[in-house]
Amino acid sequence: MDSMIEAGLFRAAMSRFAAAVHIVTTDGAAGRRGVTATSVASVSDAPATLLVCLNTSNEANQRFEANGCFAVNLLADESEGLARVFAGEGALSPEARFAEGEWGLRATGAPILEDALASFDCRLIDSRIVATHRVMIGEVRSIHLGAERPCLVYHGRAYHRV
Amino acid sequence: MDSMIEAGLFRAAMSRFAAAVHIVTTDGAAGRRGVTATSVASVSDAPATLLVCLNTSNEANQRFEANGCFAVNLLADESEGLARVFAGEGALSPEARFAEGEWGLRATGAPILEDALASFDCRLIDSRIVATHRVMIGEVRSIHLGAERPCLVYHGRAYHRV
Repeated sequence: MDSMIEAGLFRAAMSRFAAAVHIVTTDGAAGRRGVTATSVASVSDAPATLLVCLNTSNEANQRFEANGCFAVNLLADESEGLARVFAGEGALSPEARFAEGEWGLRATGAPILEDALASFDCRLIDSRIVATHRVMIGEVRSIHLGAERPCLVYHGRAYHRV
Repeated sequence: MDSMIEAGLFRAAMSRFAAAVHIVTTDGAAGRRGVTATSVASVSDAPATLLVCLNTSNEANQRFEANGCFAVNLLADESEGLARVFAGEGALSPEARFAEGEWGLRATGAPILEDALASFDCRLIDSRIVATHRVMIGEVRSIHLGAERPCLVYHGRAYHRV
């Protein structure tokens, strides 16, 4: 298969990736928003920088760009229910999702999950659309470390712990 | 800790991420190169697109940019030894690393690991330096699926299986 890659094949191949599960959040003038994401990568430790890819098809995801900040909250094993809520299960409003979990604030105003294994509160320093997604690069302004627990992992279209 | 983030703190927090382990490869006029990486993320399925972050401090990593192609080889549980070789253990030359493992070619000429869970052979469509790393975005030109096996995962500075 050497030309256009069919989307279903790509998703099937990507389902073989094991990936940590995050809730990526923002808040500010454009409003609060949080989504479950696995497309998160470390970019640099000097200065501390990471990136997130989010679908542009959901209009509420424009709030990340508009607010100019985001937090990456790395989920512990016990947070599968929260991952499902922020992945859209139950079809709660952007605001109502935050009734689940304990949320605080640190440097940028993006919601920080108190039970996260680690939270990275970032100022958005670059944002670009690539095909269906926006690639957001953030410089980390604050780190919150929660208790050390197993990590929630998504693999083979199911949740696991490692 | 609300200003500059100390690199050691960032690395400690990142070590709580569980991440799939990949060998990212290239070949072409600039020469062959392969490195173990965990900073890999899916970007889009239409068209199939992914990204990789690689350190710019190693001169041989310029070969990815110069060749204009790369392959992401997702490692199975049994490939920990290979992951260690391509992470630099044994200090083999860029070429000698490929004596380990069975390598083939598909669309772009980047080496494809026959035992990978999945390999994504990509044309480099965007490349930019962010702090110490280069963020490379690739459009997938060919996918190779290996046997379905557990996935090799790096977490807490150790290898795991999931």
